[in-house]
Order: sequence, then structure tokens, then C-alpha cells
Amino acid sequence: MRIALDAAGGDFGAAPNVAGAVRALQTVPDLTVVLVGDQAQLEPLLAAQDGVPAQRLEIVHTSDVVGMKDKPTEALRRKPDASIFRCWQLLAEHKVDGLVSAGNTGAVVAGGLKTRRFLPCVHRPGIAAVMPNARGHSVVIDVGANVFPKPRHLLEYAIMGSVFAQELLGVSRPAVGLMNVGEEEGKGHELVQKSYELLRQGPLRDQFVGNVEGRDIPRGVADVIVTDGFTGNVVLKLSEGVFEFLMNVVRERLVESLQGEKEQAALAWRDLIGRYHYSTFGGAPLLGIDGVCLICHGASSDVAIANALRAAARFVQLRLNASLVAALEQLPPDGEE
Amino acid sequence: MRIALDAAGGDFGAAPNVAGAVRALQTVPDLTVVLVGDQAQLEPLLAAQDGVPAQRLEIVHTSDVVGMKDKPTEALRRKPDASIFRCWQLLAEHKVDGLVSAGNTGAVVAGGLKTRRFLPCVHRPGIAAVMPNARGHSVVIDVGANVFPKPRHLLEYAIMGSVFAQELLGVSRPAVGLMNVGEEEGKGHELVQKSYELLRQGPLRDQFVGNVEGRDIPRGVADVIVTDGFTGNVVLKLSEGVFEFLMNVVRERLVESLQGEKEQAALAWRDLIGRYHYSTFGGAPLLGIDGVCLICHGASSDVAIANALRAAARFVQLRLNASLVAALEQLPPDGEE
Repeated sequence: MRIALDAAGGDFGAAPNVAGAVRALQTVPDLTVVLVGDQAQLEPLLAAQDGVPAQRLEIVHTSDVVGMKDKPTEALRRKPDASIFRCWQLLAEHKVDGLVSAGNTGAVVAGGLKTRRFLPCVHRPGIAAVMPNARGHSVVIDVGANVFPKPRHLLEYAIMGSVFAQELLGVSRPAVGLMNVGEEEGKGHELVQKSYELLRQGPLRDQFVGNVEGRDIPRGVADVIVTDGFTGNVVLKLSEGVFEFLMNVVRERLVESLQGEKEQAALAWRDLIGRYHYSTFGGAPLLGIDGVCLICHGASSDVAIANALRAAARFVQLRLNASLVAALEQLPPDGEE
Repeated sequence: MRIALDAAGGDFGAAPNVAGAVRALQTVPDLTVVLVGDQAQLEPLLAAQDGVPAQRLEIVHTSDVVGMKDKPTEALRRKPDASIFRCWQLLAEHKVDGLVSAGNTGAVVAGGLKTRRFLPCVHRPGIAAVMPNARGHSVVIDVGANVFPKPRHLLEYAIMGSVFAQELLGVSRPAVGLMNVGEEEGKGHELVQKSYELLRQGPLRDQFVGNVEGRDIPRGVADVIVTDGFTGNVVLKLSEGVFEFLMNVVRERLVESLQGEKEQAALAWRDLIGRYHYSTFGGAPLLGIDGVCLICHGASSDVAIANALRAAARFVQLRLNASLVAALEQLPPDGEE
């Protein structure tokens, strides 16, 4: 299968993208990566890599880039040839099966919305993120594609998140929770109250565990947490921030306070970082589009990029979209939403 | 000064409230606590305590309680004599200077909204929570009183949060950030976009550091984080949950993996729990009401209740509301909001 990589995307430019592509190609034999970026920049970076499977690596040249601080809608208008939009174009033209980007998330989503190639029954795609918890992992959807959704969108996110948890986390009947400020029915603002009703009556009614609170996410109360993209984005970034903050104080105040067993404690500490760090989850898919799109953290290393390319290849192989379409077909017709 | 304590509030009933009240009285000489709850239940609990300063402890009897799962508005209608509403009544009648409750947060807020005794220029009170971060502490406002606010409310929260950070955290010119999904201007939904404009032009324009993301909270980028009560509630509870989860895995996988220095590591671990646990911050004030109202975690221990009573006493002594009123007077007249 063929995956386009937004080689200019991310906080560190082309280098981790090129290295990540080579890493992924070395472990996935039937993968071809299309590097979309500045050829003059990419070629020397490739030349510096060992063991490049050159016949499975293509370059599509473009020198335009959407910066991390650019406004997505403006970028769409002013830089239609930017690397991320060229990736979407390749997907629309069926020249690739999927795309991976560590660039400006808003621009990735804007490019996807512009193509309007959504799966049947999907009104708005949503980003699903996998987060560690005390019982394993859960899926939070949406984490930033749709900051002011309608209740119907959350219902669609529940369906897509549930299929994703089944396929990716291997949970046979994922428990679906609605992010809210309290467990009781009737809590929260209009969006969650109306979404609660739709979820309670919808095709996932037997998997719906009701409202969940912030503390329920790390406790692993639900396998899928459905929320608006504003709250979900805060949830994802806050979790990452609290993780960084606490692991730092654990190192400074606990590991460093030891004498004889400091080395052993430091090893255990690094193991925890590896176990719960975002880079191990290989990017967050934009679910609901016809194709595969994986969005990576801006600060992605080559390891994270390689993980994302492998994950994208896996979604193509799994035919995740076919499962999403089958599940979405169970939705009742869209009423007044 | 006199503080009413919702003695029936919290997950563990009257016991931690009574023990907490006695603890607080023993350390704050000019404090009187009015226990509001079931006299028949409170008296034996008091009799079991040593060193009770009985002349500074009063009981106001009521046997009605708002349960943690009761709907606040229904409770207001059906149980007007519930302990938390009696606390508000005592405040409205100037029989106490403040109140403390570990009960149903929605009911505490509903009781406050019903009295309508807001400070001048305040349209809606907001709950301010103090959270630890890599540089000290920050104030997040609102964490649950107002789940669908207007931009004007967020402007008022910024002013109140800033005064609170000055008085409580000793920051002379608190940096104020707006919770959003990205740093750039123009990010997010209509509420944050409009609030951004109000903050940029408002009396705190020189302290306004713009949008902050989830990960910026633990990094300590701002001293005050302004947000709607839905997002703020998720932020507060998620931080608590991630803290619990990570400290558990640190104990299981790091502390327990050691041999000779296990005891020392366990001590350092407990020190971290003490340093960053919510109970040390003594409850979250509902800012904007004429009086002092501190809302405690439902799972508050006697230590947490005592901390909250001491904090409430301190706010009364500091004349926090006078400072809030002085700052709120700088607000421009309320336009179309």
C-alpha cells in the first residue's frame, strides 16, 4: 500500500520525517512512502540514511509549507500547493491509500474538509486519540477537528470510536462514555444533554455507560470517550502536560534522591516514559474520511513518524473504513440535526 | 469570624466534617464554626472528639440533605431546608461570614444563585481552583459553576481570578491565559474568540498572555487560566485522575521494583502525594458572591475540611471581596452581552 507523508510537517522540519519513513519502510515490506516536500531538501537527507529501500520511496515535490502558526483557512486559500494539501490531493486522486502528517493539525483537518470525501452517513470527521489508562487504553474522539459540534456529530463519533476501539484495541464490545461534568443524567450544557439522548437511543445503547467525568478517563471507566473537539483537545494536551510535569518531579524528587539504587530507579522511570508516552501510539486518525489520515504530534521524532506510518498501513490493511461504513449504516436517519 | 459548615455534605457524611471543624477551631483562635446538620447525629460525633472549643462551635439543626446524585434544581424545590441551603440562608441573613461545603457542587452553586447576592458588576459567580504546576500554582476559573457562559462572564472571571492569584498566591501581576485549542489568535469556537477580544481590550490587557493550551497548565505558562465551567471541570478532574493514575504506576513499577532503598523511595513518593494532592489547597471558592463560599472535594478528609475552614477564615480576614469589587469596578459597562 501507498502512504503519503507530509515531509515538511512538524516542529523539526523534514529530518525526522525522512528518517521515520526509512525506518517504517525497513519493517513493513509492502509499504511505499510518498514523501511530499521540497526535493532539494529531501534528497540530501535521504542520501545520509543507510539501507533506504529506494524502489519503495517516491518524492512529490512542493516547496510550499503550512507553518505551525498559520491560520488553516488562510493557508488553504494562499498556499494550495502546500505539502499537506498536496497529500490530500494525492488521496483524492487515488494515488495513495492514506496520508500521515505531523504538521499544523488545523490545516490537516481543513484539507480533509475541503476534499469533502467523507464516508457515507458522516457529517463531520473527528480525530480519535488513544490514551493510556489504569486498565489499558481508551479512545477519545474528537480531539480537535470539530470544536463546536452538533449532537448528531457526537453520535457518529461514538460509532466510529467504538469500531476503532474494536479493531485497534481488540475490545469486543467497547464501553462508550459521554464526557461531562458529572455522572448523572441531565448534567452539562445543551450539547451533552441532547447527545446523551441520542446515545441512549442509538445503535450503541447497550454499550453506552452514560456520562463520564474527567477523572474517569485515566481510571479506564470507558473504552471510548465521546466529546466535542474543544474539550477533547484540552483533554489530550492536558494529559500530556500533566504526564510530563509529574514524571519530571518524580525524577527530580524521587529518583535523584536515591543513592545505591538510583540507576535501577532511573531505568524503571524510563520504562514508564516509554510505556505511557504519546509517541508509542502512532498518531491520531481523522476518522470519517474516505481514506486513511493520521495526525501526529508536532514534536514527533523519527520513531513517532515511523509508528504513524506503520499504523496507517495497518488501517489500510484492516480495511477499517469498511467496518466504519457497516457500523454507520445502523444509524437512524438524520432528523432535525 | 463565623463560618457555616455543611456538616452533612461529602461522600463520608458528618464524621470528617465534625473532625475537620474541631481541627480548624484548635488552630484558628478567632474562628467560630456553625455546624449545619442533624443534631442527633452531630452531638455524639462531637462528644467523641478531644479538646473541642465548645464555646466556638454551634449547631443549626436540619435533617434534610442534598445527596451527591440529586439534581440541584429539583433539590432546591423539594428540600429547601437541606443543610447546604440552610448555610446559604445563614449567609444571606448575615449570621455567618462564609460557608464551606463538601456536598453536591451543583447544589452549592444553585443555592448561591438563588440568593442572588452577587458582588456589584458580577453577572455569574465562578469557581476558582488552585492547581499545582511546574513553576508553583495557578488558578483555573471557572471549574463548574457556569457550563455555558457568555464572553462577558469570562472577562469577569479573569478579573476575579487575577485578584485571587494576587491575594492567595502572592503573584503581583498574574499572567492571564484563555483556555483554547491552540495558541494563535482566532482559534477555537465563538465563545473563546469573543472572549479573546474582550480580554485583549479589557482592564487586564497588559497581563493577558493570549490563548493557552492544555499542556500549558502544568507547565505554568499562566497564573490564571480562564475557561468555561464545562472545560474547567474536565481540566480539574482529569488532572486529579492523571495524578492518581501516574502516582499509582510509579509506586507499582518504580518504588516496588527497588530493594534496599525501597523505604526511602516510598517516603519520597508520599512527599510528592502530599505536595501535589488536592486536599492541601483547601477547597475552591465560588467567587463573585457577597460572602465567602468554599467548595470542597466530595471525598474530603477531616484534614481537607479543616484546610477549607482555615482558607475561608483567611478570605474573610483578607477582605478578598473588597479587592474583587475594586477590581471589577474597572470593567467597562456591559454592552450587548
